[in-house]
Amino acid sequence: MTEVNLTQISKKFGKSTVLKQIDLTLAGQTIYGLLGRNGAGKSTLLNIIENRIPATSGSVQIDGEDNVNNDLALGKVYLMSEQNLYSNSAKVDQIFRETALFYPGFDFELAHQLTNKFELNENLRFGKLSTGYRAVMKDIIALAVDAEVILLDEPTLGLDAAHRELFYQELMEAYAKRPRIFVISTHLIEEIAGLIEHVLLLKDGKMMLNDTTENLLAQSYAITGPEKQVQEYTAGLNVIGHDSLGKLRSDYVFGELDDQRILPDTVSVEGIDLQKLFINLTNGQWEKERA
Amino acid sequence: MTEVNLTQISKKFGKSTVLKQIDLTLAGQTIYGLLGRNGAGKSTLLNIIENRIPATSGSVQIDGEDNVNNDLALGKVYLMSEQNLYSNSAKVDQIFRETALFYPGFDFELAHQLTNKFELNENLRFGKLSTGYRAVMKDIIALAVDAEVILLDEPTLGLDAAHRELFYQELMEAYAKRPRIFVISTHLIEEIAGLIEHVLLLKDGKMMLNDTTENLLAQSYAITGPEKQVQEYTAGLNVIGHDSLGKLRSDYVFGELDDQRILPDTVSVEGIDLQKLFINLTNGQWEKERA
Repeated sequence: MTEVNLTQISKKFGKSTVLKQIDLTLAGQTIYGLLGRNGAGKSTLLNIIENRIPATSGSVQIDGEDNVNNDLALGKVYLMSEQNLYSNSAKVDQIFRETALFYPGFDFELAHQLTNKFELNENLRFGKLSTGYRAVMKDIIALAVDAEVILLDEPTLGLDAAHRELFYQELMEAYAKRPRIFVISTHLIEEIAGLIEHVLLLKDGKMMLNDTTENLLAQSYAITGPEKQVQEYTAGLNVIGHDSLGKLRSDYVFGELDDQRILPDTVSVEGIDLQKLFINLTNGQWEKERA
Repeated sequence: MTEVNLTQISKKFGKSTVLKQIDLTLAGQTIYGLLGRNGAGKSTLLNIIENRIPATSGSVQIDGEDNVNNDLALGKVYLMSEQNLYSNSAKVDQIFRETALFYPGFDFELAHQLTNKFELNENLRFGKLSTGYRAVMKDIIALAVDAEVILLDEPTLGLDAAHRELFYQELMEAYAKRPRIFVISTHLIEEIAGLIEHVLLLKDGKMMLNDTTENLLAQSYAITGPEKQVQEYTAGLNVIGHDSLGKLRSDYVFGELDDQRILPDTVSVEGIDLQKLFINLTNGQWEKERA
């Protein structure tokens, strides 16, 4: 099984540092969710893994081989991104065939099944496809290539709700048939929360979280009740945010609760979902002002 | 107040007809939602209004003036789209100034306030912006130009959840301060359902719905209960779709119910939301197969 290792990856664009000393291992048969606010560095990270842009420092190893100028290593990775790499005059089926030159195990049968399900005409030229259908085509390619590591940068950008649902289903099916590494970067966290087994959270260019979804949710709580009692109960805990409704308050806690504390009858402790955890861990100035 | 009139607009790309004899009037101070599945022709329609692509037949009039080769008429309209029209080396503040050459009433003060709120550095070059921040920049321009008709083609594509919420708030504020015509095309219908006053629904290149959100929802129902009773009750009504859960069934009806029919105690009638109405009105082969 393929393993990807990033060691101390940093990236500067001019004066701004986009990624700061990222260490990361992608391994096993896992669907990773790469999360982060706009501008957190998600796309930059994925592009560095696929060697489309160079890191300022640090290295990426694919099965122990450096990824720079290394077609063999890079053939194990496929990056689906927003960037349009195709000629406007190329037809969809022609793009499939060109992709198969680099990924010889390209699954044409699956690709044809998927163009049918998504109602994508393979005779259309890339330049004539709508924004949504360009993404559909790229998603189909990502599911059909025989790479061991599939990086999906915003795979549902521009897809309507029914196409998004279809894509998630087909992704799960492709993964079940041939387990491999998927990394999905998206802003529609609610929609993929059930899919991702492992969360990678970028904030300000650093890897803030790198853990299984299960572990993360097991230490994420909403403490709800009358304002005063809630604040007494959560004092000193790792409160990452709160919501208020009149005199009621929910404090969101990430980390261990204190077993010694007595929970008043009026206060409840519940789990929170990934979207809520994400929002509270990544809130910027704007949310702080609102809070 | 500006009025836009489309008369019998059709558009062919090669052999495929994307738009079929669209008649449409945009008028008053209204936030329109332009909805439709992937490939329905939404972007094509907006591009024709702004004269970025020519119609195959039909005409667009802006305050009674044809929009072809007519800078005065086109100056009343602004189209924010996924297309990147800017030089990669242009800085954000420079792009604002260039926009002001075409839209002299460009609101620099609002633009600066918004770059602050979205934490967009105006000194960055367009080519260095992430996908999400490119959309943020274009959204800011769309809210700051002094056009009477603002067309927004997928304004939240690539925006994270907090930025999407901020954008909706700022849009409502801009609209309250200076009411004008907004047309928003998006696939995140749930998020904008509360914003849009008037629905334009494209299906297979035709304008399938053109009515106020209020009128549409007033004739949209979910009839829920035991399968047999539900189907007896809805027989002959305009059933646009259904969901099943065990032996329970919801039939979705669009149009008048029959006052003469007796509603069994076991069957309930409720309204549905815009997203549900949309999905059931636009379901394609794929959903039909699932049903």
